Amino acid sequence: MRAGPSQEDIRRHNLGALLRHVHLGGPISRAELTAKMGLNRSTIMALTSDLTAAGLVREELPRETGRAGRPSLVVRPESSRVYVFAFDVGPDRLAAARVGLGGAILDRRETARRRGPFDLDELAGTLAGFARQMRRKTRADTVCVGAAAAVSGGVRKADGVIMFGPNLGAEAVPFGEELGRRLGLGLPVSVGNDANLAALAEHSRGVAVGVRDLIYLHGDVGIGGGIITGGHLLGGHDGYGGEVGHMVVNPGGQPCGCGSRGCLEAEVGERALLEAAGRVAARGDGGAAAFDGDRVAVDGAGRQGRDAVRAVVDAADRGDIVAQEALKRVGGWLGLGVANLVNIFNPEMVIFGGMLREVYLGSAAQVRSRLATNAMGPQRERLRLRTSALADDATLVGAAELAFAHVLADPLEVLARVTG
Amino acid sequence: MRAGPSQEDIRRHNLGALLRHVHLGGPISRAELTAKMGLNRSTIMALTSDLTAAGLVREELPRETGRAGRPSLVVRPESSRVYVFAFDVGPDRLAAARVGLGGAILDRRETARRRGPFDLDELAGTLAGFARQMRRKTRADTVCVGAAAAVSGGVRKADGVIMFGPNLGAEAVPFGEELGRRLGLGLPVSVGNDANLAALAEHSRGVAVGVRDLIYLHGDVGIGGGIITGGHLLGGHDGYGGEVGHMVVNPGGQPCGCGSRGCLEAEVGERALLEAAGRVAARGDGGAAAFDGDRVAVDGAGRQGRDAVRAVVDAADRGDIVAQEALKRVGGWLGLGVANLVNIFNPEMVIFGGMLREVYLGSAAQVRSRLATNAMGPQRERLRLRTSALADDATLVGAAELAFAHVLADPLEVLARVTG
Repeated sequence: MRAGPSQEDIRRHNLGALLRHVHLGGPISRAELTAKMGLNRSTIMALTSDLTAAGLVREELPRETGRAGRPSLVVRPESSRVYVFAFDVGPDRLAAARVGLGGAILDRRETARRRGPFDLDELAGTLAGFARQMRRKTRADTVCVGAAAAVSGGVRKADGVIMFGPNLGAEAVPFGEELGRRLGLGLPVSVGNDANLAALAEHSRGVAVGVRDLIYLHGDVGIGGGIITGGHLLGGHDGYGGEVGHMVVNPGGQPCGCGSRGCLEAEVGERALLEAAGRVAARGDGGAAAFDGDRVAVDGAGRQGRDAVRAVVDAADRGDIVAQEALKRVGGWLGLGVANLVNIFNPEMVIFGGMLREVYLGSAAQVRSRLATNAMGPQRERLRLRTSALADDATLVGAAELAFAHVLADPLEVLARVTG
Repeated sequence: MRAGPSQEDIRRHNLGALLRHVHLGGPISRAELTAKMGLNRSTIMALTSDLTAAGLVREELPRETGRAGRPSLVVRPESSRVYVFAFDVGPDRLAAARVGLGGAILDRRETARRRGPFDLDELAGTLAGFARQMRRKTRADTVCVGAAAAVSGGVRKADGVIMFGPNLGAEAVPFGEELGRRLGLGLPVSVGNDANLAALAEHSRGVAVGVRDLIYLHGDVGIGGGIITGGHLLGGHDGYGGEVGHMVVNPGGQPCGCGSRGCLEAEVGERALLEAAGRVAARGDGGAAAFDGDRVAVDGAGRQGRDAVRAVVDAADRGDIVAQEALKRVGGWLGLGVANLVNIFNPEMVIFGGMLREVYLGSAAQVRSRLATNAMGPQRERLRLRTSALADDATLVGAAELAFAHVLADPLEVLARVTG
């Protein structure tokens, strides 16, 4: 209920809106910007010249117009000059990327991560090392305007601390602060939940561009969720919104790492599939406590993580009945979880990412059949089920968007601060 | 990504913001408005004089200031002059109210509704009749600026049609259109889901003022939900968001009117409680189909609806073991449903309304115990569980807010249209 914006607010808003067009949509002519933004030509010209002077965009003659008359200048993001660092800390990998304004991944480094306790020193050291390597390869006139990390865990909104991350062995870890210190760029490192950031990535650049109500389900060891309602990411009161993996779908079912039983994650996660396929020993009746010390599921051939999941889906494809039954079972619980979310959210799209991409492709019939039984007709009538378009890059792309967010909110202030 | 607002947009925004302060917060001095809205005194004066000229507010000297100097004028809503009609169509009652700007219920009419099929003619006729009666009692200078109805069912966002309402016997009913025609005021009637509108009411004027992330659970025959995330009502793609009653909490459990089994509504709704308490016969194994034709649960003493639920809670209070066990059972499923929602939404507050108010008060220990087991620690750490403050008025108050929404969005346009 605050008052309306001042002239200065409006200019900032317009600069951000124009830069966002260029960042998300790519090169665009002044004439198109005029039409899309509902501003007159002279205002567009003033805005682009401010952004050009700040080194955020450049204007060029179009290659070929095929039309008579003076062509409208094309505004392009300064992709090779202005960039952010994006990081991803998953149960099985550490990744870092240098991402240019406009969203292109310009450079990247990645290493496997051994599952186990969260070693803050080692993790932050590795990622900062990746960033240094990539930075040494940049030209002198490039400028880093932000940094952000996606982590497989719950991140407290107030300060970016990883409050829980059982699949990373993390609890109350001030990860962003430490990584920022190691980077030594004088920039804060924003931290977000990986599924939330993957949802933002699919919404900005993936399968869900233009979709205002979506649920992104991310599977690895656990099941995470990123939910966008009415165009906004569901953060919740403290920032832990979207933890759909701990929705109980099967009371009294499989023990879960959270201490409960029958959570979506316990019935649908990697271990549930490998157990159902007889590829790892079942969790004993010692229940959650016994399971908690034994997170690493390695199948008979020594595969773990995504490789082990793919092996089950491949086996089912080749007619392996045990693998088919396992997928059917897991797909049924996945379908029930999705049906619940469809009733609660009435989304336009549900996206399966991480290892759920493979699981969904191997069990789509079960998922759809459960939806037909358990989701209400009007809610599912216009629902689209999709797999992630950005696949394993979704979390990095989402982290890059988080890092760019403050630049888009106030382009000039940020550039003045970074270069000044 | 549209451009920033024009001067005219800003004036409209400021007028709406000022009127909203007065409407929700009650009488307020110009000095306080200046401070709260971050505008200068002359702008506030111009805005209040526009709203005064439009007959939406009036300015008065404060009764007593106790301070030296010229007192700041107090701005009051024209509560007795400017009003809306609010309607509520529940399984057991039809209600209509005349609600003044500022939110006071000035007049009301109510009648019991017999459960059964939705008779559009009869319902719209009864409610329009109530409105006519109330209108005849108003002074000549009063003006009705809007009308809205809360209904126990799913309302399609695009056109306000009640697409499903099993507990009303409604399917694809153009209720708002018909009621608008019967009212004959030349005003459209907005229609919303009752739990959604009750959530808005608690958020605006009830137990959740200032709470940006909340879940309101409404119980009558069924269980409905109204969810506010980040200050916005969760509508979903088509407007059916918040149907938490059909989240499956007990796969293979009690048959539900929706055709599925073990939905929150089937385990926690009125019938589940009365069955568990042995006060109505259990749903047979004919399942959902058999149940569907038999929605009216009447207990041995001939009570139905809220009265029958209250009788169980009272009996438990008096030490009736069967009633206590029934509440324990129902409270356990309610707690599991709440825990799931807490994991998914990380809300600041969960509000129990309708008959869930009684059920929660009678089973709070079970609900809290389930939360402790099934909701993740950080998600529930700062969670508050509350009962509805507006009680049975929540849906009417919410409908009134829906009816006022367009006035607050553009005060002058609306008044010009209505009086012009």
